[in-house]
Amino acid sequence: MYLTQALHRAVQQTPDLPATIFNGRVRTWAECAHRVARLAGALRALGVGPGDRVAILAHNSDTYHEFLLAVAWADAVFVPVNTRWSVAEIAFSLEDAGARVLVVDDAFAALVPELQRTVPGLATVVHDGDAAPEGALDLEHLLAAHDPVPDAGRGGDAPAGIYYTGGTTGRAKGVVLSHANLVTSALGCAATGTFMTAGGRLLHAAPMFHLADGAAWGARNSLGGTHVIVPGFTPGGVARAIEELGVTDVLLVPTMIQMLVDSPDAADRDLSSLRNLIYGASPISAALLERTAKRLPLAAFTQAYGMTELSPVATLLSPADHGDESLRRAAGRAAPHAEVRIVDAEDHEVPRGTVGEVVSRGGHVMLGYWNRPEETAAAVRDGWMHTGDGGYMDERGYVFIVDRIKDMIVSGGENVYSAEVENALARHPAVASCAVIGVPDPEWGERVHAVVVLAPGAAATAEELRAHCAEHIARYKAPRSVEFVDALPLSGAGKVLKRELRARHWADADRSVS
Amino acid sequence: MYLTQALHRAVQQTPDLPATIFNGRVRTWAECAHRVARLAGALRALGVGPGDRVAILAHNSDTYHEFLLAVAWADAVFVPVNTRWSVAEIAFSLEDAGARVLVVDDAFAALVPELQRTVPGLATVVHDGDAAPEGALDLEHLLAAHDPVPDAGRGGDAPAGIYYTGGTTGRAKGVVLSHANLVTSALGCAATGTFMTAGGRLLHAAPMFHLADGAAWGARNSLGGTHVIVPGFTPGGVARAIEELGVTDVLLVPTMIQMLVDSPDAADRDLSSLRNLIYGASPISAALLERTAKRLPLAAFTQAYGMTELSPVATLLSPADHGDESLRRAAGRAAPHAEVRIVDAEDHEVPRGTVGEVVSRGGHVMLGYWNRPEETAAAVRDGWMHTGDGGYMDERGYVFIVDRIKDMIVSGGENVYSAEVENALARHPAVASCAVIGVPDPEWGERVHAVVVLAPGAAATAEELRAHCAEHIARYKAPRSVEFVDALPLSGAGKVLKRELRARHWADADRSVS
Repeated sequence: MYLTQALHRAVQQTPDLPATIFNGRVRTWAECAHRVARLAGALRALGVGPGDRVAILAHNSDTYHEFLLAVAWADAVFVPVNTRWSVAEIAFSLEDAGARVLVVDDAFAALVPELQRTVPGLATVVHDGDAAPEGALDLEHLLAAHDPVPDAGRGGDAPAGIYYTGGTTGRAKGVVLSHANLVTSALGCAATGTFMTAGGRLLHAAPMFHLADGAAWGARNSLGGTHVIVPGFTPGGVARAIEELGVTDVLLVPTMIQMLVDSPDAADRDLSSLRNLIYGASPISAALLERTAKRLPLAAFTQAYGMTELSPVATLLSPADHGDESLRRAAGRAAPHAEVRIVDAEDHEVPRGTVGEVVSRGGHVMLGYWNRPEETAAAVRDGWMHTGDGGYMDERGYVFIVDRIKDMIVSGGENVYSAEVENALARHPAVASCAVIGVPDPEWGERVHAVVVLAPGAAATAEELRAHCAEHIARYKAPRSVEFVDALPLSGAGKVLKRELRARHWADADRSVS
Repeated sequence: MYLTQALHRAVQQTPDLPATIFNGRVRTWAECAHRVARLAGALRALGVGPGDRVAILAHNSDTYHEFLLAVAWADAVFVPVNTRWSVAEIAFSLEDAGARVLVVDDAFAALVPELQRTVPGLATVVHDGDAAPEGALDLEHLLAAHDPVPDAGRGGDAPAGIYYTGGTTGRAKGVVLSHANLVTSALGCAATGTFMTAGGRLLHAAPMFHLADGAAWGARNSLGGTHVIVPGFTPGGVARAIEELGVTDVLLVPTMIQMLVDSPDAADRDLSSLRNLIYGASPISAALLERTAKRLPLAAFTQAYGMTELSPVATLLSPADHGDESLRRAAGRAAPHAEVRIVDAEDHEVPRGTVGEVVSRGGHVMLGYWNRPEETAAAVRDGWMHTGDGGYMDERGYVFIVDRIKDMIVSGGENVYSAEVENALARHPAVASCAVIGVPDPEWGERVHAVVVLAPGAAATAEELRAHCAEHIARYKAPRSVEFVDALPLSGAGKVLKRELRARHWADADRSVS
């Protein structure tokens, strides 16, 4: 199993079919392969050897697709960098991965001097820019200057990519995925037969640096067809691309689906070519599902759940499952390439309906964290990747995610899931955002504690919020204490940093806690 | 990737769904897993350790399915034995593989004493028999006597099975396939989305010892659902199983399809539940395709081409391809898990339309031939399995098989494919069977030579047959010499032993060659 296999197959079977359509630019599979082989040659000339890391910091583009394949072709390892990170975070990941080359697009070219200062010996290549900054190379010049090289033909358990994750729980870790990892997840998703149209057109609107989009990218490559790429998500841009280019498949997160369905920018577009809508990150609400089904009557819905460490798919909620009321909050069940279980802290499987940690085993489990053997050993035990997600499984094997394991609270012997309390709190009109954590309590062991940002001009007391919650969830789950703050600490990816909240709660006893 | 993953998934998701239906006996996935874990325990108790070989010599049954999974569960290696072989051939394969245990069914129980004499130390287990012969164990007794053991959890590149092939070209060779090999081919076939119904019912009418049926078995396991098993192929039995059990998928060879469609035993049966008909071994004729499509209007046709060494699928001809006249003789194109090329004797890819050897690369290429490193190195070069099949590829990547490479004849500088000449000869009413070989010729280099068995009571001269052929194929391809024999030498699998014909031609100059 090797990532370039799909490229060879596409060139053999459909050389003149568009591989990519981006900003009106069409490149066939034959052209794509030609550019990939030249880019691999250029990387070699830049000193990239087998197993060396090559990073990319760019918005979505056709070059992004070519880059991933070219790095695999050269038997190097790609490092797709999160475009939302700070320069310091980016520099950390480049240094940690020991990247030799960084490809950036015009939008990030200005960062090159600073990154070159911070990461010694880093060669940088700019694509799609008007002029490369001092000390950087131009990708099109490189392509013109270098001959194509043959495919190195590596695959199987050889590392193909490193994806950096985290930030909410400490320093970012590099997730090392092999060729076999990525192809296994792609084939397993495709094997359902309802994931993606064979030979169709997949729209990349989610960021290509994230493996959620990468999962769809891999399945599309396996099945042949065309990548339609937009630089990033806007409801109008996505709707227009679907209408004008006859897009058949798209991967979105629920927020994007909601914007696509509700935005006036998308309202007049004909979206009837869409056959498969894949979404991840969270279940979709019944109301949104209904609105979306009306807007996209021909589209089948698949929810994918997993994580980067699972390449990334572990469970799938099929189109048929979406018709089952009892599965509204489900994340799906083990995909054709995966095994999934719910286990307790001693790694014993728990009975159905009992909350524990979601673990998964199979050919999609990462090789490990880059240069972090101890963290790898802690996460992957006896072949099972421990997701850190708390959830339960029903009698038919469907998984329901309730919370991150570390965010679960045990209060008075009862399990409380912070996500459930946060959902209840968020329904109060005065609450702009909130986070719920457990704090030590002499009477209850842990106490349910809420950190709340009020909406501008709104007011609410702790008692009011407690009473509000008790209307929606069991009284023992309602926050026993509430802390009002101006803003929640967020990670680069926009996730609430609960560890900071916990630390701050203890370090700052003066704060108004009622 | 491991073969037992699908079993764990099925038990988790559909414990009460029938795993197997055989002769009216229904076993659910929960029951299946229970029996598998006990059978694995029994194998352990018989001294089977990790990597040890365990053989089975039996007709199709539910126990066959359980056996394959139990051997994988125990981290042993299964050896499915060809039921059509002679006792000497069977004994050779058991000895060559170093089998520790042999499972037989009632039909083969009588061979046990002789096999035990020939293969020292072989423990034998009889299933489904009334009484095990002297020195053999009873499978149900073993299951009752042993506790279930946990899944050994092996997979990936670990050997899962050894399939013996050959006989036409010398002594049989054991093809060693890993867990990843078998799962890769299964997922790749399923990934087309048109191979097999998710959660449906697959009928096993082709022999389960052959990996053609094994390919369908693996895909069915990956997708969940039910195995409907009949002991062997009869048109009436297959039609009845389809009607009574609502079979959705079936794998057959074209001869079986023809019998199913034409037999009066099947004529009154309702076959409308069939959704997918997978066939292999050879393309299907236009006339048969038309008749079959009329009889099975709801079935989608997929042709699979490959060989045991490719686990076994390399190319697929999709249901849509069957509507394309120009693909009538095609074997399909590279499946989602495979790469396929046509190469010359120096392993260089030949231009489209040029005949060369079909080679394939990917995660489905065998680990190698058992204890035959030189033959492995000759067959798998630079990752490419050399199939020994001669064929060409069209502009869209479709492969057309013309002959076995070694059966191709170069006469007067022209390529002649024995299969093409045999097809022409077979159309003469006096010809019962025939084989075409190349024999050395001072003038032509090689001469096209036919060995013919005449139909009972029929007569034809060499000149008549030459003239007949020249009506259907180019004159230079028509046999320049014809040899009449009473019977063709056949292998255990019913293939003509051309190497014997070639040898005999030289050893026996007295024969009537005209």
